[in-house]
Amino acid sequence: MNIYMAEERVSIYRGLKNVYVAESKICLIDHERGKIYYYGYDLDELAQKSSYEEVLYLLLHGRLPTRREFQEFLDRIRGSMRLDPEVLEVMKRVPKDIDMMEALRTVVSYMGNLRSRGPEYTREDVVDYTIDLVAKMPSIIGGLYRMWRGEEPLEPREDLSLAANLLYLITGREYDERDVRGLDMSLILYAEHGMNASTFAAVVVASTGSDYYSSIVAGIGALRGPLHGYANTGALEQFLEIGDPSNVERWFKENIESRKRRLIGFGHRLYRIHDPRAKHYRRWLEENRERFDEETRRVYETAMKLYEVAMNSFLTEKGIYPNCDYWSALLYYVLKLPKEVYTPIFAMSRIAGWSSHIAEYREDNILIRPKAYYIGERDKKYVPLDER
Amino acid sequence: MNIYMAEERVSIYRGLKNVYVAESKICLIDHERGKIYYYGYDLDELAQKSSYEEVLYLLLHGRLPTRREFQEFLDRIRGSMRLDPEVLEVMKRVPKDIDMMEALRTVVSYMGNLRSRGPEYTREDVVDYTIDLVAKMPSIIGGLYRMWRGEEPLEPREDLSLAANLLYLITGREYDERDVRGLDMSLILYAEHGMNASTFAAVVVASTGSDYYSSIVAGIGALRGPLHGYANTGALEQFLEIGDPSNVERWFKENIESRKRRLIGFGHRLYRIHDPRAKHYRRWLEENRERFDEETRRVYETAMKLYEVAMNSFLTEKGIYPNCDYWSALLYYVLKLPKEVYTPIFAMSRIAGWSSHIAEYREDNILIRPKAYYIGERDKKYVPLDER
Repeated sequence: MNIYMAEERVSIYRGLKNVYVAESKICLIDHERGKIYYYGYDLDELAQKSSYEEVLYLLLHGRLPTRREFQEFLDRIRGSMRLDPEVLEVMKRVPKDIDMMEALRTVVSYMGNLRSRGPEYTREDVVDYTIDLVAKMPSIIGGLYRMWRGEEPLEPREDLSLAANLLYLITGREYDERDVRGLDMSLILYAEHGMNASTFAAVVVASTGSDYYSSIVAGIGALRGPLHGYANTGALEQFLEIGDPSNVERWFKENIESRKRRLIGFGHRLYRIHDPRAKHYRRWLEENRERFDEETRRVYETAMKLYEVAMNSFLTEKGIYPNCDYWSALLYYVLKLPKEVYTPIFAMSRIAGWSSHIAEYREDNILIRPKAYYIGERDKKYVPLDER
Repeated sequence: MNIYMAEERVSIYRGLKNVYVAESKICLIDHERGKIYYYGYDLDELAQKSSYEEVLYLLLHGRLPTRREFQEFLDRIRGSMRLDPEVLEVMKRVPKDIDMMEALRTVVSYMGNLRSRGPEYTREDVVDYTIDLVAKMPSIIGGLYRMWRGEEPLEPREDLSLAANLLYLITGREYDERDVRGLDMSLILYAEHGMNASTFAAVVVASTGSDYYSSIVAGIGALRGPLHGYANTGALEQFLEIGDPSNVERWFKENIESRKRRLIGFGHRLYRIHDPRAKHYRRWLEENRERFDEETRRVYETAMKLYEVAMNSFLTEKGIYPNCDYWSALLYYVLKLPKEVYTPIFAMSRIAGWSSHIAEYREDNILIRPKAYYIGERDKKYVPLDER
């Protein structure tokens, strides 16, 4: 167990491991069978058959849309894609050389300043806010990336899905349908995952009765951490550092077997077996590998070799398996996306889950206010400064 | 107890009431004796004898400074008071008619964009960041307030304390020493209070390994909630709504005894007796009441009458007593501060506590990742959109 006793009768729930903080109808994570469900729907099926837009609807409304409802929902997304000029101005003022997640935190906070109706908001308002925010995310991510390279941001295209807009607005290119499908699947797989750290940060903020954007900004801040969303960026950096499949064994021995470093993209608080999301990435990579150019193939094969070596190492005995960040990093690299946008794409997708949990939690709100167990000194005498 | 069983063998810790999430040496809250200690020092003594600057040092370093250390610390604060022109530009772009806490969230996030060195940071970095941020808060709060009224922001004054700068930069006036002392005391009393909701939000974000400013921005977002920091703004609005001591009894009967509304500024998760911070405010108000002008006296007497009526009502039987937000609201009103700045002043003060907990938590970090207990539907069949 993850609980230890500081003194008799007191338990410290470090990391809140295995502590249930709320009931929820949103996500079932069945560790033992390696299955995830969003509102009762098998994520394996959603990843294959649905779209990110439809999953967003599901997470906001708790049910799948009819054809007509979905058409209206898509119309609302299309109508919200364009950035306000004020937002573009603030994007320009963010320094070029910073981490994009930290930039996103400021930009989304500022969008809240233009949109927020304060602490009183309904589930319908959450739907409004979320559509507005998610629809604009491809323009924000693509816009920041392009502006930082001295290029003009592109206009979002209403004829493209959110996934296709992401690819287009970042790279300026139109992608093969199979590539769009790969990114769309990734957005579905990242959209929701129970009471993870960023969702919990968003819910803690919501529990004070604060406004919607304060919660989302907290979620972005939490996702920026290397122990959470940043793992996908870190995983890619690792692949590039190794550089070639022929270097994997030596690198693994020197860095991981020696316990000098942790293997990024491996291990998850909840899974002691394969992350159920991993197989979808692996299938896509397998099915599309013939289209990879030489450089892409080398990184792909490095990652596959590292996977193989790690799976035959001490890690699996300790229940440490690759998580979905390992594979999303590889997919994004294959799609020739710059690594700056990996965690921001995760954030865009997860806004669905954050919003879903915020709306649900507010329906039966209670302030989240734990305690810290005091182990410090007692009764120290204050000596005035003059006498020190 | 605050735990209930959703089904056998599962406990849901709603609101994390009485759940210890970490050990800490920072703050001892002794409910039974009604005492608070910062790093072992009695808050009653600090409130009377210390200054906010010294308490900030204490919370950042875990001990009181020597005279020389304190002098250096004050020099660093003085050298950091002035805003970067880039920050003033972003302040100008925030819409005038929004809540100042939401504006603060954007401005502090942007300051992070100019300052952050990312997820790798030490306790020394926390000291640097905190000094920089706290020293600038009077200029940010005062600057936003003045800019929103069409006035030019004032330059901070190195000859004044942080409390005196706050008063000066908001109102443009120099205050009587007794008034400065009142606000300074309030900053001391608000500086830290264990694992409260905003501190916890900051710590959840820090636990992912994210950067300092992401944590602080989460803290600001949580403090913006009416169930947390916003209570002081709400308390003042209540006094003004009642308007006159002669209205108190009718208002209380109609709104509170009827259970139509909650009495803002009363009740606290931790205290079933008087909030130990309240007496310091009441003493200051008592000692300074002769200086109040007529309008101030009316609001003061309204608040005192409301206090008296509430203390003789059903509320005390339920353990609902005034908390420190009730009294800080009254103090700030007496100091003729506009209500927009009440919660931002709380935020400025509490940055001390947030920073202290962030630094401590990172010394033995573990990702905070609880669970939600699934109560939703299972095994729903995905029907393709075309067949719906």
